[in-house]
Amino acid sequence: MTASLSTVPAPVAITSPLTIRMHDRDNVAIVANDGGLPAGTVLANGLTLRDRVPQGHKVALVDVVAQAPVLRYGIPIGFALQDIPAGSWVHERLLQMPSARGLDNLPMPGDGVTVQPDPLPALEGYTFEGYRNADGSVGTRNILAITQTVQCVAGVTDFAVQRIKAELLPLYPHVDDVVALAHGYGCGVAIDAPGAEIPIRTLRNISLNPNFGGEVMVVSLGCEKLQPERLLPPGSFPIHAEGSKIDSISSASGQDLDVVCLQDDAHVGFMAMVDAVLRQATVHLERLNARSRVTCPASELVVGVQCGGSDAFSGVTANPAVGFCTDLLVRAGASVMFSETTEVRDGIAQLTARASTPEVAQAMVREMAWYDTYLERGKVDRSANTTPGNKKGGLSNIVEKAMGSIVKSGSAAITGVISPGEKLKQKGLTYAATPASDFICGTLQLAAGMNLHVFTTGRGTPYGLAQVPVIKVATRSDLARRWHDLMDVNAGTIADGTASIEQVGWELFHLMLEVASGRKKTWAEHWKLHNALVLFNPAPVT
Amino acid sequence: MTASLSTVPAPVAITSPLTIRMHDRDNVAIVANDGGLPAGTVLANGLTLRDRVPQGHKVALVDVVAQAPVLRYGIPIGFALQDIPAGSWVHERLLQMPSARGLDNLPMPGDGVTVQPDPLPALEGYTFEGYRNADGSVGTRNILAITQTVQCVAGVTDFAVQRIKAELLPLYPHVDDVVALAHGYGCGVAIDAPGAEIPIRTLRNISLNPNFGGEVMVVSLGCEKLQPERLLPPGSFPIHAEGSKIDSISSASGQDLDVVCLQDDAHVGFMAMVDAVLRQATVHLERLNARSRVTCPASELVVGVQCGGSDAFSGVTANPAVGFCTDLLVRAGASVMFSETTEVRDGIAQLTARASTPEVAQAMVREMAWYDTYLERGKVDRSANTTPGNKKGGLSNIVEKAMGSIVKSGSAAITGVISPGEKLKQKGLTYAATPASDFICGTLQLAAGMNLHVFTTGRGTPYGLAQVPVIKVATRSDLARRWHDLMDVNAGTIADGTASIEQVGWELFHLMLEVASGRKKTWAEHWKLHNALVLFNPAPVT
Repeated sequence: MTASLSTVPAPVAITSPLTIRMHDRDNVAIVANDGGLPAGTVLANGLTLRDRVPQGHKVALVDVVAQAPVLRYGIPIGFALQDIPAGSWVHERLLQMPSARGLDNLPMPGDGVTVQPDPLPALEGYTFEGYRNADGSVGTRNILAITQTVQCVAGVTDFAVQRIKAELLPLYPHVDDVVALAHGYGCGVAIDAPGAEIPIRTLRNISLNPNFGGEVMVVSLGCEKLQPERLLPPGSFPIHAEGSKIDSISSASGQDLDVVCLQDDAHVGFMAMVDAVLRQATVHLERLNARSRVTCPASELVVGVQCGGSDAFSGVTANPAVGFCTDLLVRAGASVMFSETTEVRDGIAQLTARASTPEVAQAMVREMAWYDTYLERGKVDRSANTTPGNKKGGLSNIVEKAMGSIVKSGSAAITGVISPGEKLKQKGLTYAATPASDFICGTLQLAAGMNLHVFTTGRGTPYGLAQVPVIKVATRSDLARRWHDLMDVNAGTIADGTASIEQVGWELFHLMLEVASGRKKTWAEHWKLHNALVLFNPAPVT
Repeated sequence: MTASLSTVPAPVAITSPLTIRMHDRDNVAIVANDGGLPAGTVLANGLTLRDRVPQGHKVALVDVVAQAPVLRYGIPIGFALQDIPAGSWVHERLLQMPSARGLDNLPMPGDGVTVQPDPLPALEGYTFEGYRNADGSVGTRNILAITQTVQCVAGVTDFAVQRIKAELLPLYPHVDDVVALAHGYGCGVAIDAPGAEIPIRTLRNISLNPNFGGEVMVVSLGCEKLQPERLLPPGSFPIHAEGSKIDSISSASGQDLDVVCLQDDAHVGFMAMVDAVLRQATVHLERLNARSRVTCPASELVVGVQCGGSDAFSGVTANPAVGFCTDLLVRAGASVMFSETTEVRDGIAQLTARASTPEVAQAMVREMAWYDTYLERGKVDRSANTTPGNKKGGLSNIVEKAMGSIVKSGSAAITGVISPGEKLKQKGLTYAATPASDFICGTLQLAAGMNLHVFTTGRGTPYGLAQVPVIKVATRSDLARRWHDLMDVNAGTIADGTASIEQVGWELFHLMLEVASGRKKTWAEHWKLHNALVLFNPAPVT
């Protein structure tokens, strides 16, 4: 069906061909119509397509001579490898990817040239019903999480969780779920190597996620490298007077950390271990069950935004709507994290320009530089990011993907940066440095303290987490129609022309408050679709 | 309770103090008694303990002067950091670890000096009842495995597996189980980086494990980096004429690979995806259910041996018994793999000396050198292996641990070497290079084609796999008593003096045939204790 580049097909009549151009400077637009547009289609601007152009893929709006930049989002996403006549399908094989932007001479706040974003007007009066924790954080769910020091204990913990679900959970109706925090770390790893602090603090901070109400309990084997006191040193976790309500965060001796150690001499027989976990769980279930939702300002939301299975619409529909909603959240005083280092690396100049201080800009540069080195050590670069599905969806390379990805961060000043596995330190917009892998990014955003997760997808993914509600936003109406009971929001209406970015952004904002309040469940919650925790461990295994 | 090193306590009467010395040259022995021995205990040889020595820990049999070697297994496991009087507790803080054996000038078969092991006499007449596969391999269980290309599909696959267990499995009574092969790989990874072939071939070869009867089915997302045809290229998997019995391994076009692709346009709604998995599963369940066990020679066993949570008894009781059993298996013509690179690295000279050919010896050296480089790149060395539990159990360092670990390999000539994730190529004794991490090693041994797993433990671990029976061997009677329904064999009887290494080795061999035949379940099977698949990925994530 693809016409030769050297012939111009005869015009074909098509109902409402839709193309989307993102920026005045762009010399390409993407085709929005389901199923794409055939060669010969006459666009609204009078241009005739020389090739069939699949949905989400780019068409040249003018003749592009060899070596000239192909511009999308107003920036060069590549350079033409040959002359590309107007009306041609501009696919990845016609483009030379630009080299990575160096990390020197970036625009910086206070450099006398960079114009900082204007502060956004405050947005007041929005609230949700959440679980207020002793440390001031707020949960959107009331979950008993069972921390594990090592994969060795996963089978026993699973067995115990099944019994807790069957025997105990019905007795504690205000507790939403019990979740085993299983992972592949804890032993057989170089625990003192550079980089090992990342998986360790990730596990520590996940166990302290606001959705678990400060009720930390640990199952340990006994002989593992990651000992309970290394995972949760004294002072890092809440202490409860036995049987009391949560009322303090103590930096006490740590002797109160609840640990069931399977190798403890006291356990005779398998069921003794399981019973010990159940006894320990009961104490925490009692306290969790005594809680109830209270009205909290929207500023208590801690939202992690992420995209996965991206296509060319991600940066046109879903991500801009999320970006608009990010601004709403920042205006409401909430915390928002965007992440995915390899997907923002090519937009570093736009990001440093938006940093609130030189220190924030430098912290972003430091994270990018660290990841450049990490990839180099593995003999790859950021171009290893794009997937077959990205390309099928119209994204030619990581530069184009990055431009569509950073749109999720909206327009507010970036006021914070955290390293992988760290806990969020402040409200406002933070760059939480993580790999772009969906499950690893989600795991690290959980560690950062996320209590609500937003995930945009173009190709479609059934992604979900047991620890936090995941709101999924479809970039295309076709996906939203087919995956009607997996996608929570359809941003494809933006490409269809039936809704604006602002409208979908507000829809998402209101849905967030509903979901955070427990009045609505996400589809992932409905079906109990749970992806695994996948840790980022740049250190060796042994 | 620990006496000062400078005073000799008064003699104390103790019933039967037990110590074990491994080699005539050794200047230390370990204390075998439960609970250890108090200072003042008079040993059988007349020596009086100067310190309390915990169970499994070493006592100096003679005065060891500063800098002199401390010998166990006949080799220096360390050098005294100070004078150590006879009767002292020789703990890790008194020892300087020897530097790693270089990889040059190792004993090699045919070097004119190295004496090769004598061939072991054949052992005939032993059989088990197994599931004979079309490719000649034999399963010990009859399991439907669902291969996944990427973590994204884990939630949907889990949902489908729960339905298969509830709705389909009761209709197919000869099928033992359905197992989702979930993992953290498949996307967000540098899939073309050096080292990425390891996780990819691991997943491929696991899906071809003999316990799955050649019934390969795949759940794919669609846009992931690890596409089904990359995971299982044409010719790598068995093809079945629709509905027929398994009768061929074809290297056909690959169009017959059964893949449910969630992003397929045909799926409208979540349950359509789940139904598609169930439909596909039904075809495979039909064929698996039509199989029955047949008598197979013991030579069809493919045994992976491993140790985890080791103590000083591992190398005295359980591992020597496993080593004796390894010899029985090799004599019966079976395949045995030993692994755990960081735990055999310090025994490389003993291993090259046992290689059947210079090529096998060189392949072992190549694997050790690769791992040395991998650890160096992460700025650690093989000493990162030992755990707090190892040390508590009496193992001073990786040299002592390694000597106890390689004993599992018995005395036969080493005839094969495979790299991580590769499939076993031959019968006899193979060094399957893997990290020592229990779950990673088990995952890689599964990929190698293991149909029976033996795991020794001193500290105790409830380790189990869903894919293959795991026989667990306790190194100490105390552990076997307390974990009476988790440990399958008690090798502690060797230290107690109530059984010989040979007796426990034969007990294990007979139990293997029972378990392989499905006549006995292991404790891990009884409780359904399943550890996760944990991949070895030395390449970066993105």
